[in-house]
Amino acid sequence: MQTSPDEAIERRSGVALWRQIADRIRLGIAEGLADDAGRLPTEMALAGRFGVNRHTVRTAIQALVQEGVLRSEQGRGTFVEGPRRLSYPIRARTRFSAGLAGQARERRGHLLSHAYEPAPPQAAEALGLAPETAILRLETVSQADGRPVSRATSYFPAARFAGLEKHFADTGSITAALAALGVPDYVRATTRISARHADSADLAHLKLSPGAIVLITFAVNADSAGIPIQYSLTRFAADRVELQVDGEG
Amino acid sequence: MQTSPDEAIERRSGVALWRQIADRIRLGIAEGLADDAGRLPTEMALAGRFGVNRHTVRTAIQALVQEGVLRSEQGRGTFVEGPRRLSYPIRARTRFSAGLAGQARERRGHLLSHAYEPAPPQAAEALGLAPETAILRLETVSQADGRPVSRATSYFPAARFAGLEKHFADTGSITAALAALGVPDYVRATTRISARHADSADLAHLKLSPGAIVLITFAVNADSAGIPIQYSLTRFAADRVELQVDGEG
Repeated sequence: MQTSPDEAIERRSGVALWRQIADRIRLGIAEGLADDAGRLPTEMALAGRFGVNRHTVRTAIQALVQEGVLRSEQGRGTFVEGPRRLSYPIRARTRFSAGLAGQARERRGHLLSHAYEPAPPQAAEALGLAPETAILRLETVSQADGRPVSRATSYFPAARFAGLEKHFADTGSITAALAALGVPDYVRATTRISARHADSADLAHLKLSPGAIVLITFAVNADSAGIPIQYSLTRFAADRVELQVDGEG
Repeated sequence: MQTSPDEAIERRSGVALWRQIADRIRLGIAEGLADDAGRLPTEMALAGRFGVNRHTVRTAIQALVQEGVLRSEQGRGTFVEGPRRLSYPIRARTRFSAGLAGQARERRGHLLSHAYEPAPPQAAEALGLAPETAILRLETVSQADGRPVSRATSYFPAARFAGLEKHFADTGSITAALAALGVPDYVRATTRISARHADSADLAHLKLSPGAIVLITFAVNADSAGIPIQYSLTRFAADRVELQVDGEG
């Protein structure tokens, strides 16, 4: 991993030093910061590398332990928690479970709540519906091997997908729930990707520590006739998952 | 825009309240927070909405003004600075200039520095080179209508692309520089997307305020024979640009 004065920590910041150091450690892991056994350098070495004191490094490590990125072993040091960061594919046929196959043994969605209500403006627009048309809103959390990976707010036209929440609760899969309601296949039309700090709901449902960053995707799925069936806002724990786009050129 | 108790601000955090409010305002803009004239609610209204005091809102707005997201007009209020957030496409034929066509009149890359040096491990691996093979490293900043959008560290095999930095400095375009060296076309093989807090170099070159978030892409481009020609780490100012992936299914 390269270090340069250019990458110095910014001290006059709206972000606590320990949080910045936690970010650096997390990204450093992807670039070879840990040794082949997955062990991090000592707190003292990390403090020297980042130009901060050991207490700051310790606080950063504690946050990453709490988030499941690192684990501490008494007397042995701090290790990268396997598996490494998940890679979530964004492509025409993205499905949560299939996308993480090979990276996690168990992938499952959990229903937090649902509601039938008038479509908010952005959902109506994305789904090509008149303002305030009835939609079904699902609030869900997706886990991989028991670790929360993302939480989503998904909107479906209520007239077409009444009862979808029950199929989802039963199967833990949007794909299976849609299939049960007569949509055997669908494609992802467009995905917009941004990022922000985790809010309270992200912290609670994704088990993040304060100051963590979430990647945000806005996505529209369409059926095989091109009719929009789902609009989703998904927040991914940036500490645990990256998004991957494969060229198809 | 919906608000819910779920989305309350997190106070025990490694991120300053004003920075969290700045994030919320920025994302709120995409969801209709401003009126049709692009005007934000008053500081008092925003303070009430987010459950913080006016001083915190003012600090958040000042940061967003500094970043070019908002502008203050004496006696009239605070407005969303046009154009709105840029949307940067990630696809097989992504080129910076073409990707932002229609969103910005002028798109140009600027060379900060370059070096011929041994490839760092991740660049060697991405380019399919033996460890320490000579590469050309370019540090660049891309601007749209004079606003910095992204800064990139790009690696090219030195044996094949010696002198590319001169063509880039002349044209402000990687595409044009590669064409001048006999690569008329290339495709993006894979892009990985993550996010972190801006470091000092991001703050300086992207003109961000401390605590801002950057979207990070790791991308490999290949020539028409499938041979990797470029590995790039790019940091996008999340306040100014989102990434967009179009389904091609």
